[in-house]
Amino acid sequence: MNSNSLSEDRFFDPDPAIRGLARELYLTIAHLPIVSPHGHVDPWLFADGSKRFSSPVDLLVIPDHYILRMLYSQGIALESLGVPRLDGVPVEQDHRKIWQIFADHFYLFRGTPSGTWLTHELNQVFGCHQPLNSATAREIYDQIETCLSSPEFLPRHLFERFNIEVLCTTDPAWERLEAHQAIHISGWQGQIRPTFRPDGVINLDAPGWRANLDRLSHSSGVEIHSTRRLIQALEIQRLHFKSLGATATDHAVLTPAAAELAPGEADTIFQRALKGQSTPEDAARFTAHMLMEMARMSIEDGLAMQIHPGSYRNHNRLVFHNFGLDMGGDIPIQTEYTRHLLPLLNKYGNDSRLTLILFTLDETTYSRELAPLAGHYPALKLGPPWWFYDSLNGMARYFDQVVETAGLYNTVGFNDDTRAFCSIPARHDTWRRASANWVAELVARHMVGIDEAQEMMLELAVGLARCAYKL
Amino acid sequence: MNSNSLSEDRFFDPDPAIRGLARELYLTIAHLPIVSPHGHVDPWLFADGSKRFSSPVDLLVIPDHYILRMLYSQGIALESLGVPRLDGVPVEQDHRKIWQIFADHFYLFRGTPSGTWLTHELNQVFGCHQPLNSATAREIYDQIETCLSSPEFLPRHLFERFNIEVLCTTDPAWERLEAHQAIHISGWQGQIRPTFRPDGVINLDAPGWRANLDRLSHSSGVEIHSTRRLIQALEIQRLHFKSLGATATDHAVLTPAAAELAPGEADTIFQRALKGQSTPEDAARFTAHMLMEMARMSIEDGLAMQIHPGSYRNHNRLVFHNFGLDMGGDIPIQTEYTRHLLPLLNKYGNDSRLTLILFTLDETTYSRELAPLAGHYPALKLGPPWWFYDSLNGMARYFDQVVETAGLYNTVGFNDDTRAFCSIPARHDTWRRASANWVAELVARHMVGIDEAQEMMLELAVGLARCAYKL
Amino acid sequence: MNSNSLSEDRFFDPDPAIRGLARELYLTIAHLPIVSPHGHVDPWLFADGSKRFSSPVDLLVIPDHYILRMLYSQGIALESLGVPRLDGVPVEQDHRKIWQIFADHFYLFRGTPSGTWLTHELNQVFGCHQPLNSATAREIYDQIETCLSSPEFLPRHLFERFNIEVLCTTDPAWERLEAHQAIHISGWQGQIRPTFRPDGVINLDAPGWRANLDRLSHSSGVEIHSTRRLIQALEIQRLHFKSLGATATDHAVLTPAAAELAPGEADTIFQRALKGQSTPEDAARFTAHMLMEMARMSIEDGLAMQIHPGSYRNHNRLVFHNFGLDMGGDIPIQTEYTRHLLPLLNKYGNDSRLTLILFTLDETTYSRELAPLAGHYPALKLGPPWWFYDSLNGMARYFDQVVETAGLYNTVGFNDDTRAFCSIPARHDTWRRASANWVAELVARHMVGIDEAQEMMLELAVGLARCAYKL
Repeated sequence: MNSNSLSEDRFFDPDPAIRGLARELYLTIAHLPIVSPHGHVDPWLFADGSKRFSSPVDLLVIPDHYILRMLYSQGIALESLGVPRLDGVPVEQDHRKIWQIFADHFYLFRGTPSGTWLTHELNQVFGCHQPLNSATAREIYDQIETCLSSPEFLPRHLFERFNIEVLCTTDPAWERLEAHQAIHISGWQGQIRPTFRPDGVINLDAPGWRANLDRLSHSSGVEIHSTRRLIQALEIQRLHFKSLGATATDHAVLTPAAAELAPGEADTIFQRALKGQSTPEDAARFTAHMLMEMARMSIEDGLAMQIHPGSYRNHNRLVFHNFGLDMGGDIPIQTEYTRHLLPLLNKYGNDSRLTLILFTLDETTYSRELAPLAGHYPALKLGPPWWFYDSLNGMARYFDQVVETAGLYNTVGFNDDTRAFCSIPARHDTWRRASANWVAELVARHMVGIDEAQEMMLELAVGLARCAYKL
Repeated sequence: MNSNSLSEDRFFDPDPAIRGLARELYLTIAHLPIVSPHGHVDPWLFADGSKRFSSPVDLLVIPDHYILRMLYSQGIALESLGVPRLDGVPVEQDHRKIWQIFADHFYLFRGTPSGTWLTHELNQVFGCHQPLNSATAREIYDQIETCLSSPEFLPRHLFERFNIEVLCTTDPAWERLEAHQAIHISGWQGQIRPTFRPDGVINLDAPGWRANLDRLSHSSGVEIHSTRRLIQALEIQRLHFKSLGATATDHAVLTPAAAELAPGEADTIFQRALKGQSTPEDAARFTAHMLMEMARMSIEDGLAMQIHPGSYRNHNRLVFHNFGLDMGGDIPIQTEYTRHLLPLLNKYGNDSRLTLILFTLDETTYSRELAPLAGHYPALKLGPPWWFYDSLNGMARYFDQVVETAGLYNTVGFNDDTRAFCSIPARHDTWRRASANWVAELVARHMVGIDEAQEMMLELAVGLARCAYKL
Repeated sequence: MNSNSLSEDRFFDPDPAIRGLARELYLTIAHLPIVSPHGHVDPWLFADGSKRFSSPVDLLVIPDHYILRMLYSQGIALESLGVPRLDGVPVEQDHRKIWQIFADHFYLFRGTPSGTWLTHELNQVFGCHQPLNSATAREIYDQIETCLSSPEFLPRHLFERFNIEVLCTTDPAWERLEAHQAIHISGWQGQIRPTFRPDGVINLDAPGWRANLDRLSHSSGVEIHSTRRLIQALEIQRLHFKSLGATATDHAVLTPAAAELAPGEADTIFQRALKGQSTPEDAARFTAHMLMEMARMSIEDGLAMQIHPGSYRNHNRLVFHNFGLDMGGDIPIQTEYTRHLLPLLNKYGNDSRLTLILFTLDETTYSRELAPLAGHYPALKLGPPWWFYDSLNGMARYFDQVVETAGLYNTVGFNDDTRAFCSIPARHDTWRRASANWVAELVARHMVGIDEAQEMMLELAVGLARCAYKL
């Protein structure tokens, strides 16, 4: 977005008192390694040392639903951006042409996080110091292409260059984790850990549920014909994930409702689902029941439990039908935590062995529900701003609305939550700058001393994440 | 509000870096004409060149529900402010006495948009540089009265002096638009365009629904005895509006629910309504159905479609009974868009021929629902802060919560939405200053360059509105 | 929190223009007495001149649910903090040990209101200028203990030193108010006024409802076997409260629903409740009905009526079971006012004899519902930020979201709402600084003049509270 190279003071409040302190605080932690406890990078990138990124478009445009959605919202067809259609109808193949469309419309990203991440990435990762626009498109494409063909841009090299201490991936519950095994066997020292995500089998209305269940049967070796067997299979797979370094689970749900069903009810629902006869209400009750089970398992095996509610998936049915999941058509809904989590918190919330990390797409819950809950229950921690809120304003609102009530020490630092590997440094840098800015203002308002501020920065940059995710 | 004349730097952040940039950016667009795509000014003001404003009280107090509500909230009877009662019981007629009450209580408006608009208006339109209070009331009244009697204060003269490029009015669907016709015939060059508002016939529970329907039959020449005929009549009137320059429709609804009813259901409801037997549930379903129809018509005839949901009208029944509509007793309610608009967006949201502009009185929906929706669907744009949010803080929250996710280019600039003609420059000036302040901070934080900032200012001041409303 | 003594500029925006104005405005009201119209200090503290505070832990840790919740959220057992268990199982008795735990974990309160209040209290009340931490714990304990044993730290002495003009307590409807009577009889001039709180008898599901009813029968002299008699008893007790200086009532409810039940229905429910057969639905309807009755009584006897909705009490059942009420486990829920209050506002909202003061734990209602309602209904006023929002950010959001629509003059100044007597100066000082900062920014942005700003400060510090509560 900037007309040339990145300013050292970017994102900081222009007030000289705050800016000076923010810069100082930022510099105390800027060199620290990246701790990335939650994300969606493909572990196969690191499975052997020779895997390469393909074209600039494959790296930066096609897999990034933040970018696709903005271009699509302005009437640009996804086909013209090279996004493959499920029906195999051909789409644009000329990556230089796609890149030109992207560059022509890069002004749409002014003031957006995608804009700042991309600018950071082009500058810091690929050394492109010009602004991206119609005129510079070609040259920048060439420069990135050249980079990608050099050995310094192999994923493992970038992992080291990015100074990543640990990177957690997200993996379906039925995964055998062959990529993670290959990394271990290869002897490479980079820490890549899996995260156990069972949505596809515990949300009865997940696309492909029946096939997912079969996959889980297969990998766990448990024939799943009952809820009891499902639970057994999940427990086995959790152990498998732990053996390859997992320290957490992740749960995407429409609402965070948790409830223990009467004995037998869960299995009655499960049997209906096996016959393809379960209702949306069934699915909701079953997920609520399984969240209770998953909390119990977390207490037993020590995996931190993450819940991400509130995304109405695939809102745009046409786009879902033509292009599948994750095309920008997932839209948040209102979310309620106080009553929905009551059963789970009453059963397990007082148990310090559990670490339950909550996320939200409904910012109204920060000060009203999440901060009061996290500021009381020993098991509860509050995850960082998620998705649309992984932005400078989102972070500022989070600090503003969460910390006074929850305290900093009931939060868990930052998650980049990205599948875009090359954007990881940009995202963590944004968080670190936003953190420094927030802490600097506390100092400038005489609310914390400078020594305290430095301790807080350390926690925000690495400490809270390491602790909550046991890394 | 200020003790004397207006500061050139009013509303800007006092930080010198931001203020300097904001002033500079503001000055690049301050001279641009006013584009007013949505409002409630009476078109008869411009129908011939001799129409005059009457007294200061008729101009500034009695028709302004923002002012009435604040005075009423402090126990001042509407009768004492000259507001006519529906039952004809006499009310205060002495406008100097009313003006004195207003001036005595002008301190109530400290820190409110009404206060800043009035101050701007008194200063810039009427040249009154003293603060309005008990002591200055009389003198200011005299000065305004003198102005109003001079030819420079005829509405058409003010229109030109205010540098208005285009002014859109809001007109019931059954209007023959005689005022607009008179303007055209008069040869005057001012652009005054109607906007098609069908609430009074598509909301079955609208006050006077049956009479409105008759009026629509009359102006369209279609005997409306069925839903099909209603739709036909609306289509005819839309063409009539277009022929007089309309480029948009406007829809006030309690919720933004849209849904295609089963064939026959809409008409069954309509028949019940004709017999005076429809239920609130009927009315809600019928409006939901008609919104779908109106979206279809917009695709066909190209009128931009505006939806304003979430106002619980006439909350104060006593005030409504005694004084009628628009007395300050309309109160917002929670609003939900993600699920309510699903059918409409799935049917028409991917069609770039549609421009659907959404407004809200529930700011929680900015970042949670509206920005994600507008940042994805090609047909969707987000309207500016509406009503209670047409204020400096409201605008700042809007920029803060909308743009990172929706992008600037999925918004539509500013609407003044006012029936107070003389307040139009004040309102646009507030928006332009708020915009300049926001963009200046992006520059000061090194998030956009100064060239980009200038382009953004142009869009905010005139470009986005011209484009979205096809003006 | 600060490394040494308090800065004179604490909490102010670091921008020099704002800070200078804020300091100037703050100093114009810093010397004014404290008006405390709503709180929970024990009136027995003042009943005779010899009552003493016991240990630092009894004063600052055990009764403060803000502190307990934060320590508990980090896994510190309430038993280890000396909180008595209901079952009599022994808890930690060594107050020096408890204080050490508190000091060891005081870093948890960085950036929280508890942290700033405690720091203020230690500095200004007890003269401890070191930061509280593991190393200083013992010395600070000694210093506070020494203070508490001196005559200057007797409650009445502190009352005068704190410059409290009036302090309102909160007292159950069945109270005989013996403490207040003792204060009157003693001849001491400090104004301590009771507030009438009937939740325990009008919420049919209140813990101990039946026993509360008997207490009310006893103190009022009315045998309560019907709704009519309940109302009669309440009316008698209101008079008793008024005779001892009460000017207000207070109502805690889950939702602010108010509704007049059909004749007979309220008593049918009440009879069911007497037999122990009422349902949660019954309780909700009965409370809604009684709110209408209480509004009527307020019009008749002139007591201001306060409603605090939206707290889900005793969310953590284990903590409630072991330790009872007010241990930090009360969690907010979404709250709706526009529709819930419709019947009450339609019946009484236009009557200026009523002062109805609303509070909220759902900040989304500030700009959407509460400010529009308070900016219209003559009877309605908006209370200050409550509970989790009694903080610098909470206050800033309140000013930002309320005043543009409601106007300053439909708000009621500050409530400290505390049971911690020694924190009262800290809390009012925070409010006064936050107010000064807000008004200073209005001046710096040229929205109000400096003369207006000074008047606004006076209102914020003492005027609005005196007026709304008739003190």
